[in-house]
Amino acid sequence: MQHTAPSGRVGSASAPYLPTARTVPTRARERASYDRELVHSILDDACLCHLGFVRDGAPVVLPTLFGRVGERLYVHGSTGSRPLRSANAGDPGLAVCLTVTHVDALVLARAAFHHSMNYRSVVVHGTAVTVTDPEERRIALDAIVDQAVPGRSRDSRPADAKELAATAVVRLDLNEVSAKVRTGGPNDDPEDLGLPHWAGIVPLTRGHATPVPAKDLDPAVGVPDYLSTL
Amino acid sequence: MQHTAPSGRVGSASAPYLPTARTVPTRARERASYDRELVHSILDDACLCHLGFVRDGAPVVLPTLFGRVGERLYVHGSTGSRPLRSANAGDPGLAVCLTVTHVDALVLARAAFHHSMNYRSVVVHGTAVTVTDPEERRIALDAIVDQAVPGRSRDSRPADAKELAATAVVRLDLNEVSAKVRTGGPNDDPEDLGLPHWAGIVPLTRGHATPVPAKDLDPAVGVPDYLSTL
Repeated sequence: MQHTAPSGRVGSASAPYLPTARTVPTRARERASYDRELVHSILDDACLCHLGFVRDGAPVVLPTLFGRVGERLYVHGSTGSRPLRSANAGDPGLAVCLTVTHVDALVLARAAFHHSMNYRSVVVHGTAVTVTDPEERRIALDAIVDQAVPGRSRDSRPADAKELAATAVVRLDLNEVSAKVRTGGPNDDPEDLGLPHWAGIVPLTRGHATPVPAKDLDPAVGVPDYLSTL
Repeated sequence: MQHTAPSGRVGSASAPYLPTARTVPTRARERASYDRELVHSILDDACLCHLGFVRDGAPVVLPTLFGRVGERLYVHGSTGSRPLRSANAGDPGLAVCLTVTHVDALVLARAAFHHSMNYRSVVVHGTAVTVTDPEERRIALDAIVDQAVPGRSRDSRPADAKELAATAVVRLDLNEVSAKVRTGGPNDDPEDLGLPHWAGIVPLTRGHATPVPAKDLDPAVGVPDYLSTL
């Protein structure tokens, strides 16, 4: 079924994702967004996702690296890993939910009830399918390396035939997607504003420390520029 | 069924968690641990988890705050939220997988294949059950606030009857639990050590910036000590 986005375009680069029953939250709907650029920016600010799937009827959530190429997400792993084997089990692939979350601040209200956090998250529902095309696999593996360190894939030895044979790559298309964002200060009730408790936000910071060379690195190999601009 | 841990103690505070079929990884088993103190330390270094459950046969993974009290984890939410309603649907509760992950460093190898990250993760499998006992609910709600900011629950207005009525609390016991930890530098193959690519780790840092008071905060309320020791 084709939906027509408000802009009149169908699936164009700038049209928002189309909400579905499971991407419309039951609560805090004002925090939900289907904006494509916002979703991309939240994904691109991360290299780790939490991937959920169902095994023997029970949920499993595992952290894993990922890469984004346009409207496609890729994850990889050993061909022996259980979820990747499941994705490889032919049609219809493996039902997954891929979630990325950034916590930007702790939000302290006068009332315990109104404590919260400022965050940006993306939840992707869909079906993970095994990628078999050699060129798409190469692009996906580069994207996973570059998601963590942009530019790194060009400065490392590409996978050889043996490594490629040991690596499963699965793709999840960005179709059923939502972002959720909270910003701003605490939302205390008016009658609590005079209470003697501190209220506000505690911003959380993250960054990169100085790179630490491997013990066996040739000292002639300097720190590459792409690490200084992370 | 009771298992006896190697120490001879059953379920004592210091005995390790007992591995099960789903807490023994198929890969990198040397990174897995069932050590209770390690699991606690990884959990306590976080206030956000990714909670997975199954809805209409498909996986759902949502970020949420949590709190730990001994061998029990608690999450809370609106009584109207879908997963919390499911947990409330009586026996046997809601099958969940709760995962906490810290990324400590990016690991850059000469070979793209050996790129990795240093991380600490905990995966908990189990059944989330709704907490109805008022005293346990109070302890749980305090723990969730204190997980993010230790000491904060004592310096905020406790939930009143209306807020309590709107809040669902669910418990997940720490029984089927594993940690996974990677540390150290890249593991390149010997024949790649002479390649001209930089190799090593990029440590990731995280911290707290200066607290930002709410716009409507009485200037007489100073920043509390427990924020300066976060």
